[in-house]
Order: sequence, then C-alpha cells, then structure tokens
Amino acid sequence: MIEKIRVAICQMKVVDDKNTNLKKAEEMIKESVQQGADIVVLPEVFNAPYQVSLFPVYAESYPGPTTDFLAKSAQANGICLVGGSILERDEEGKIYNSSFVFDDKGSLIGKHRKIHLFNIDIPGAISFKESSTLCEGNIITVIKYKSISFGLMICFDCRFPELARAAALEGAQMLIIPAAFNTTTGPAHWELLMRSRAVDNQLFVIAASPARNIEARYHAWGHSMVVDPWGRIIQEADETEQILYSELDLSIVDTTRKKLPLINGRRSDVYELLYNKNGNY
Amino acid sequence: MIEKIRVAICQMKVVDDKNTNLKKAEEMIKESVQQGADIVVLPEVFNAPYQVSLFPVYAESYPGPTTDFLAKSAQANGICLVGGSILERDEEGKIYNSSFVFDDKGSLIGKHRKIHLFNIDIPGAISFKESSTLCEGNIITVIKYKSISFGLMICFDCRFPELARAAALEGAQMLIIPAAFNTTTGPAHWELLMRSRAVDNQLFVIAASPARNIEARYHAWGHSMVVDPWGRIIQEADETEQILYSELDLSIVDTTRKKLPLINGRRSDVYELLYNKNGNY
Repeated sequence: MIEKIRVAICQMKVVDDKNTNLKKAEEMIKESVQQGADIVVLPEVFNAPYQVSLFPVYAESYPGPTTDFLAKSAQANGICLVGGSILERDEEGKIYNSSFVFDDKGSLIGKHRKIHLFNIDIPGAISFKESSTLCEGNIITVIKYKSISFGLMICFDCRFPELARAAALEGAQMLIIPAAFNTTTGPAHWELLMRSRAVDNQLFVIAASPARNIEARYHAWGHSMVVDPWGRIIQEADETEQILYSELDLSIVDTTRKKLPLINGRRSDVYELLYNKNGNY
Repeated sequence: MIEKIRVAICQMKVVDDKNTNLKKAEEMIKESVQQGADIVVLPEVFNAPYQVSLFPVYAESYPGPTTDFLAKSAQANGICLVGGSILERDEEGKIYNSSFVFDDKGSLIGKHRKIHLFNIDIPGAISFKESSTLCEGNIITVIKYKSISFGLMICFDCRFPELARAAALEGAQMLIIPAAFNTTTGPAHWELLMRSRAVDNQLFVIAASPARNIEARYHAWGHSMVVDPWGRIIQEADETEQILYSELDLSIVDTTRKKLPLINGRRSDVYELLYNKNGNY
C-alpha cells in the first residue's frame, strides 16, 4: 500500500505554437522528475490556446502527436503522467476536451472527456461558449495507478458537486483537476471550490492551471493548488509559470474520515446519487 | 412575486434556563420586527444548553411550550419565524433535533428533523455524539412561505452537499441553516461550507448560530452569516450576541443562474440525485 506520493503540478505558460508547448511540457516534466515526482500533472488545454474557435484547428485523434509524446514521456521518466487536457477528435469528427493519463510503462490507464462544457455570459466581464465547437463527455472517471485511486475531472466539471462525490464513492483518495479559471471566476470561486470539494469528500484535491499569459486572449487565473482532506491549502502558486511540488500522505484520508464521519455518515436511505461510470447507469 | 425580503438572524446567547432563553428570543424577535424583518431566524437548540446528556431533559412534544411560544410570536409579529431548533419528543418517546417554522398567521408551515447527527471525535479538540440521545430525521425539507421557497437544514446537515442540491432542485431560492459549529470546526469550515453551498446551488444561504457563551460547556463559533448566490458574504456576525439584518433581492437567483448555468447545466443523463421528500423516495 502506497501511502506517500510526490505530486508535481506543471503550471506552464501556454502559447499559440503546439510544438513550443510540447517542448515546454517536456522540460517541466523532466524537472519534476529530477525533484522526485511520482505523478506529474499538466494543465487544461496545455498544447493550444484556449479559444473555442481554434479548438478544431488544434484537435488531434488518439493516438496522435500529443498523446504519443505523453506516453513516451511517462515511460521515459517512469511516472504517472496526467496529460492535462487536449482537444480530441473522435472517429466521427466530434471534438472533446479530453484528459489522457499514462502510467510509468507508457500505457494509457484512463481518459476523461469533459462532461460540463464551459458556457458563461457575464456582460462586461467574460463570455465563453465551449459548446459551440466541443461535444460533451458522459462518463465519470476514476483511475487506478498502482494502489492509488483518483478522480479526474476538467475545469467546469468541478463546479458540479455530484462528480467529486461520485469519485469519492468510487474510492478516490484524490481529485486531479486540470483547469483554467479566468480573472473573473478565479478570484471569486477557485479556492472555494477546490477547498470545498476536499472537505466534503475528505480527500486531496490537485488543481492544475496554466500560468497566465497576458498575450493570450484568455487570461488564466493560475493559482494551481493542492488541498488536504481538512481543506487546508498545502501548496499554492501565483499566476506565473512554475512547478508546484507536494508530498501527500494518503493515510490522512482515512484518519480524517474516522474523526469526522462524512463519507461514512451519508444517509443513503434518504438520498442516493446514481451516476454513469464506464457506461453503467 | 416577492423579490425583496428582509431577513433577521437572532444570534442569541443561549443559557441553561429555558424560560430565560424564550424571553431572550422574544425580545430579539420584537427588535427584529421593529427593524422591518419579514423572516426571523433563531439558532440551533435555542432554548437549551447544547449538551447531549441534557437533551432528554429539555425535550418537548409538539405542541408544547416552546412551539406555542413560536406560533404566537409569529402571529403577533406578523412574520415567518424559523424557530431555530429544539429537542422534540415524538409519541414513541424518541427525541429529534427539530426546526419548526410558523407563518405570519401562526400556522405551522414546515418542520425539519436533523438528518445527520453530529458525531465527531478529534482527540484533544472536540468529541461529541448526538446519536447517543437523538434519533435521525429522514426527510429533506423545502418550505413555501408566500411566493418564497427555502430549504431548511440543521447544522451538520449542511456538510452533506446532497441536501442543499436537493433543495435547489425543489426550487429553493434560499437555504436557512440554524447551526452551532464550534471553535474547532468553525474557523476551519463554517465560512467555506456556507459559501460553497451558495455558489454550487446559486441561492442565498442564511446561517444562524447562537452567540458564544464561554460559561457553557459547548462554545459555539457564532459568525452567523448571509451569503449571496455568487458566494459573497453580505453580512457576518462575530461571536457576540446580536441581530444580523439583510435585505435580499431574490431576483439575483435567476440572473446568476442565467450568467453561469450551473443548476441548468447539470447533466442528469450522467448522474441523478434521488431523495426522500415528504416520504416519496
């Protein structure tokens, strides 16, 4: 049973050129591994600008150049690599915001397609409509890596408490959330959401944002963070490019649940959450 | 359609003597009404010390002296009175932590029995076991008063996101939460929970705590607060006895839900919450 794991979040500054992004990711992954990381997490849409109109231009099939890079990097570095997210084109030509996860052998061990597309319209602040070019995933994702279990969701997904709860009920000890909040929703809700998902579900939360690129059209909030099951922020970045390291003692999940019986105190005779996991609903 | 309502939270200092508590409640309700309150909220266990071993001593049947007082006070003052909570003894002798709500005619319009009993064991900090003397409710409560709809839950209930979500799905524009966090859980989680329930469900949260009584065995956190649907704290008390006033524009619930489609963006094809409301499950 693995209890202590070292997680690195690569809060990379994403630019317009895909190859430049892949090289930056490669450098940061190598640096993370030199610092002893077991699991390395990249941010949402780490290989392309976060602009809905450009998503079809940057979309790739699986396998494709970016997923090949991720698989090789995971194997070469002997890590679990959570590949942030990329624009994935399926066989029918539909595009998804998808996270691919590779183990230390370079094998794909999980994939999450963003379930809740980011549609927002706050006049004078931000307007964004992912659903204009993307399709929605429909499966809640929990991934096993060695003896570790973690839920995977992408950005707007984290606003829906059902997903975090379902992951906890499926045994997740952590939630890994590649995400790119902005300078409106970030200061308002980023920390609140990450901490509340951790506290309600008594698990670790690892939120990976891109760094803020003021030359890009979309200004990411940054502030990647790691939260423990009591809701304490263990590590937090500012908005600049950096790698965030933390060592997590996963036994805290169980001790927290014993002290304060939330997961075990649910009243499944009063309410129950049904959810679609691997096609069973 | 009522859009603006004035809510008063009576953060009263609860003492051992029941009559003293009822008199204090009466004074604070009158003061609230003089200030124009439409809805007045009392805190959890407002008529008795918060000690599990004493709950059977203070328990009352319905109707009984405290609920009679609440009904008369609601009618005399022409308000909706959310009677915090009291220890309720049913016909079989079982005891519940129950909130009784009376309208401006003095009629009982709703009752909530605490669904999640407060059991906690943090060595050196706090140990408390409500289930040693109390029984659990099993119905999620949403109350209509005139054209207003609000969810009602008691303290530990608010730690379970399913309840707040169910209330929102049933049309609640507000959550009213009589609650007594303590000096361990209060600073760690009180604000986080109230704000996150508001943001996730895009409604107002009204959390009513007793004032801190350092002569009592249980030291309440206080910090009654009102949070808007964007997660902003509109009003917050410190730990001392006081009345907290706020005027709520309920139209903000809809405008928030239009700007950021969370309630309407749920994926009921991917997950669904079943719950027991008025016996239907």
